[in-house]
Parts: sequence; C-alpha cells; structure tokens
Amino acid sequence: MPTSRLEAFSDGVLAIIITIMVLELRPPDGPTFGDLADTATGFLTYLLSFIYIGIYWSNHHHLFQLVRRVDGAVLWANLHLLFWLSLYPFTTAWMDETGLAPTPVVVYGCNLLGAAIAYYVLQLTILRAEGSEGVLREALGRDLKGKLSPVLYVLGIASALWVDEWLAIVFYAAVAAMWLVPDRRMESFVAAHGSTA
Amino acid sequence: MPTSRLEAFSDGVLAIIITIMVLELRPPDGPTFGDLADTATGFLTYLLSFIYIGIYWSNHHHLFQLVRRVDGAVLWANLHLLFWLSLYPFTTAWMDETGLAPTPVVVYGCNLLGAAIAYYVLQLTILRAEGSEGVLREALGRDLKGKLSPVLYVLGIASALWVDEWLAIVFYAAVAAMWLVPDRRMESFVAAHGSTA
Amino acid sequence: MPTSRLEAFSDGVLAIIITIMVLELRPPDGPTFGDLADTATGFLTYLLSFIYIGIYWSNHHHLFQLVRRVDGAVLWANLHLLFWLSLYPFTTAWMDETGLAPTPVVVYGCNLLGAAIAYYVLQLTILRAEGSEGVLREALGRDLKGKLSPVLYVLGIASALWVDEWLAIVFYAAVAAMWLVPDRRMESFVAAHGSTA
Amino acid sequence: MPTSRLEAFSDGVLAIIITIMVLELRPPDGPTFGDLADTATGFLTYLLSFIYIGIYWSNHHHLFQLVRRVDGAVLWANLHLLFWLSLYPFTTAWMDETGLAPTPVVVYGCNLLGAAIAYYVLQLTILRAEGSEGVLREALGRDLKGKLSPVLYVLGIASALWVDEWLAIVFYAAVAAMWLVPDRRMESFVAAHGSTA
Repeated sequence: MPTSRLEAFSDGVLAIIITIMVLELRPPDGPTFGDLADTATGFLTYLLSFIYIGIYWSNHHHLFQLVRRVDGAVLWANLHLLFWLSLYPFTTAWMDETGLAPTPVVVYGCNLLGAAIAYYVLQLTILRAEGSEGVLREALGRDLKGKLSPVLYVLGIASALWVDEWLAIVFYAAVAAMWLVPDRRMESFVAAHGSTA
Repeated sequence: MPTSRLEAFSDGVLAIIITIMVLELRPPDGPTFGDLADTATGFLTYLLSFIYIGIYWSNHHHLFQLVRRVDGAVLWANLHLLFWLSLYPFTTAWMDETGLAPTPVVVYGCNLLGAAIAYYVLQLTILRAEGSEGVLREALGRDLKGKLSPVLYVLGIASALWVDEWLAIVFYAAVAAMWLVPDRRMESFVAAHGSTA
Repeated sequence: MPTSRLEAFSDGVLAIIITIMVLELRPPDGPTFGDLADTATGFLTYLLSFIYIGIYWSNHHHLFQLVRRVDGAVLWANLHLLFWLSLYPFTTAWMDETGLAPTPVVVYGCNLLGAAIAYYVLQLTILRAEGSEGVLREALGRDLKGKLSPVLYVLGIASALWVDEWLAIVFYAAVAAMWLVPDRRMESFVAAHGSTA
Repeated sequence: MPTSRLEAFSDGVLAIIITIMVLELRPPDGPTFGDLADTATGFLTYLLSFIYIGIYWSNHHHLFQLVRRVDGAVLWANLHLLFWLSLYPFTTAWMDETGLAPTPVVVYGCNLLGAAIAYYVLQLTILRAEGSEGVLREALGRDLKGKLSPVLYVLGIASALWVDEWLAIVFYAAVAAMWLVPDRRMESFVAAHGSTA
C-alpha cells in the first residue's frame, strides 16, 4: 500500500489532538489579569504538549519521506503510536487540574515514555517491512536523540516520585528542546539521495 | 467519481471519532493513583472503542485499495457506515458512566452490530457499482471474518441480557482480537495482481 | 488556483461538524432503556442534522467534480456556506434541549434556509468565475431541487410559527428525503462528457 | 520536502479551530427569541473569529501557491502560527463570557497580534528557505496589509486599555474587513507567471 492515506489519517488525528487540548483550557473565572494569571499552569502544560505533538508530527513527516510502501503491521504500529498520543489531552488535563501534583506528573511522564517507545516500535516495523533495501536505516544513523529521550523521561518520572515535580518538568522540557533543533538527518539524506516517497 | 475524496472525508470523520472519545475520559477527581484507578473502566472502554475504529479504518483502507470508481449510492452507503461509527463515543460514554450496566452493554453491542451490517452493505453496494468485473469480489473471497463478527456480537448482546455483562465484553473483545490479525486477503491480492486504485 | 485544497478544507470542516454533534448527545442519566428513550428527541435531531451535512457533502463533492479553477471569491463563498453549516450543532442542540419548542424549530429552519441560500450563492460565484465556458451551467440544468428547498424551508418555518412544530419537522425532513435520492445530473453529465476536474 | 503534507496538516488544524469555537456557543437557556438574543455577544465574537480564521486559511492557501519546497524551519514557523491561532477559541470564549470586559478584549487583541507576527515570521522563514530565486518576494510586493494590521491591533489594544472596549472591537473588525477584500497580489502574479507549486 502507498503511504498517502496513512499520512492523511495521522495528520487528521494529530491535528485534532493538538487542537482539542485547547478545549481543556477553560476561560478564566473572572475578567481581570489576575484571573488570567491563575490559568498559567494550564497554559504552560498546554504549550508543552503542543510542542510535543508538533515534534511527533514533524518527525513523522520526516520519517515517511523515506518510506515507500506500508503493510498491515505498519498500519497498526502507527495506530499504536496515535493511541499513546491521543492520551496527551487526558494526562495534560489531569496534571493541570491538580496543579502539577506528583502522581499526575509521573503519569504524564509514563505517557511521554509510552509514545517514545511506540515511535521506536514504528521505526522498527517500517525497517522490517522495507527489508534489506535499507534506505531508512542508513538515514536514521545511530538515532541518538531517539535513544536519549526515554532515558530523560525515566529520570523525569523518578524525579517526580522521589525529588520534586518541577525537576521532572525540567527533564520533560529538555527532551522537547532537544527535538526542537530540527532533525537534519532526514533532510540532509533527502538532499543527498532524493526522496523515495 | 474517483475515490480520493470519499477516502479523505472518511479519514477525517474516523480521525475525529477516534480522538474525541478521549474527551469523554474525564481527568480523575483527585491527584493520587487511587483516583486514577477509579477511571479504569473508562480507560478500558476507550481502548476497546479505539481498537474498533482502528480496525474499521484499516479495513476501509484495504477495501478501497481495490475500488476504482464510486457512485452516489456508494457515497451514501459509506455515510451510513460513518453514522453508526459516529455513535461509538455516545454508547461508549454511557457504558462507562454506568459502570458497565447490562442495558448500556446491550446498546453498545447493537451499535457494534449496526456498524458491522453497514460495512457489509457498503461492500455489497461497491460490488454492485463495480459490476461483473469483480476484482473486489474475488479478493473478498468467502469473507469469513465478516460473517462471523455479527454472530459474535449477537452472542454478546444475548449474554449481557441473560447471563453477565462481562461475558458480553469478552465476546466483543474477541471480535476485535480476530480482526487485529491483519487482513491478508487484500494485501496478498494486491501483491499478486497490483492495486487498481 | 486548483480546487484540491478548497475541497480538503471543506471535507475537514464538514467531517468535524458531522462528528461533534454527537458530543451534544449526552449519555442518558440512568442505566435503563427508559433513560435511553428519554434521549430520543436528541437522537432524532442528530440523525436529521447528520443527513443534512451528508447531503451537503455529497452535493459539494458532485459540484466540484465539474469545477476546474477557483478564485478568491469562490473561497469566500465556500467559507460562507461552511459558516452556516457550522451553526448546525448550535441550533440542533437548542432544538433538542428545549424538547422541540416552537422558537428553536423556527431558528433551526432559518439556519437550514441560510445554508441553502449560501449554497446557491456558491453555485452562482463558481458560474461567474467559470465564465462563458459553462460546463457546470449545462450540468446544473433547471436545478429544480435547489429552487424547491427554500420554499419548503419557508413553509416549515411558517408552520412552526403559526401551526405546529412537528409539521415544520415534516417539511424539513421532506427536503432531506428529496435530496437523499442521489443527484443524477452531475453523474450522468460526467458519464456523458467526462470530468473536467 | 514538498508542501503537500504541511498544507494538509494546517488545513486540518484550521478546520478544527474554526469548528470547535461553535462548541463554546452554549445553546440559549430558554426557548424564546429573548433567550436567543442573550447569546448575541457570543454570536458576534464567534462570527469575528470565524472570519479571522477564514482569512488566515485563505492567505495561507494563496501563500503556499508560490512555495515549492519547505525545510524544518518552515515546519516550525508554521506550527508557531498554528499555536497562536489555536488560542482563538480560548480568548474568544473569555471575551464572550465576561461580556466584552476590557482585559479580555486586550488579551484577544494580543492574540490577534501574536498571530499576525507569527504569519510575518512564517513569510520571512519561507523567503530565506527559497533563497535568491525570490518568486514569492516579488509577489508579496510591499505587503501593505501585512504591515498595517499590527498597527491597527495595537491601536485596538490601546483603545481597550484606555478608551473603550467597543472601539477596540471596531479596530479589530477593520483589520478583518481590510483582508476580506481578496488578496489579488498572489492571484494576479499566478495569472501572469503561473503557479510554481
């Protein structure tokens, strides 16, 4: 199967996830700047989750530049990733409503970790479907960011459990910052070899 | 008419259905793991419905690989399917909010059954629109899964009515598990004959 | 400009409208069939609005089969139509929550009328943008349904104001039934002359 | 990377933003025209925000007619724009719920200003990615509207702070009216030189 419909469906789901989180941002209770300031936690968690979904969309976009064909297993590996991402509004809202209590921060980190693992599984599934032709494998290289992210998430979860929930947020934000630096691997590879999509 | 816009619209509707169900998942009332555990029923029903919508999307995707042209009747058969699927968030939320009471489990099963029948009607409508050329008919083969699913749904509905609602959930989950095994018919057919889309 | 992005955006908006109306369908208050029966009005109005949006999507799809290029005026005529359609969830919910009180039924009829006029304006705008080449003009023919619909809506609105709100629903449903019969004009035209899109 | 997937994702996000704002429009509390009139502020702010999103979609559509390739920086400049636009439902709802109190009108103006700046940054990022070939640069011309909009937003914000919130609404609406006049630059450029997309 060509990848176009998988990409369109993923775009649809990611567009909805990134947008419905704003529905959880309830308008302030009163008409003053003070009331607005009370929603600052919600705004910050919204911003963080928005950036994460943006990163996944951007990486997904780069990834499928180098994928020609998908099979049923790739469809489900992709749905598995979308499932984890679809929980972001839920865990973000819980973290926000409890004012960044430790447990919700831990659960949010587990959600981030689950999505990172699902993305890794998706890459593996694509690599297996591609077989030995391996254009993607070469482009992925050592995938340092992909391997460092879960470590940072686990450190964040541990911080929320035993140290401080704000330290966890720092770890989570560090992963986002790391990915915000654009992933040049795919782009330089495409520039050098041409897209296969 | 070509199938591209029907596929894009269906992708849009399915992407929204699969994502808005998470809006029904209200964040836990408190900040502890115990509060999170109280939402377990909601989480399980969400997971089940997510998998169902994923299955319909995947099957729809496979199906339209072999469809070249659609007419007005196919458009409406497709909208009819989308209507039944659009009720999933409603019946899922009811089942969740009542803690899996028998009647909501029956109604959820009727919803699943309605969608399965609508999918069957969609296949028939496409076959009639395709005429005697019959590439799809050959690829569908005996359609064992498609014929077994309604039987299992009816058994589930009967279980919820007269035996136990958890037995019904087992029957419903069995259908999902049966379909999660990728539908190789279309793929092997496409591999052998090439896509006509 | 080609029509592809206008069609994709319209598909997105229509997919969301048709799906978010189900969010207004609150799950029944209790776990019995009697509680479900209490939501019957909501279900009927949801079904009616679902069919309307389905009709607009189907007609929009048929219409743009014969449109090659759009300009800024067509973009805005299309957004104008989408605006009226985006109010359906609002007027449907009001009609439902008041148990089909006369005023909401009148306002719902005005919403239907507004969308019908907007669709008519969209057709005119496209015809003007197309110029004297006039493939679409020929395919539209006398546009009997398009001219009959506003008359029936006005009769429905008048019924709700001075006779009975259920008579109004009958008029509204009559329009839906009239359009559910597939619009063969475009299809037969495309069959005879080939699509220009 | 080609622009198709960036356009599809943006269409999805914009379609959702423009449609979910209607979810904030709560149905009137009672069944009379008087109850409907009480929702007039909400309706007006919805209309204004609908037009703004429509303008951004239309301009975005025109803009990407002349863009051939995007890189990671353009993806993020586009996500940055979508972030500001995704806040419209939030600021619109706050303005509506407080009955156009001064502070929410100021914040709404800041949101409009943020989106305008993000759009400007997106244009710059594309121009830099395009390099010296500069088809877009020529088509943009002096970009008078793009430079006038932020000035009018700032005047609106100042009016809400020190004069009257309705004067601010007049300034905001003036920007919308200015853009509603279709942007002929791109169209005439495309007509003269042909699209490069």
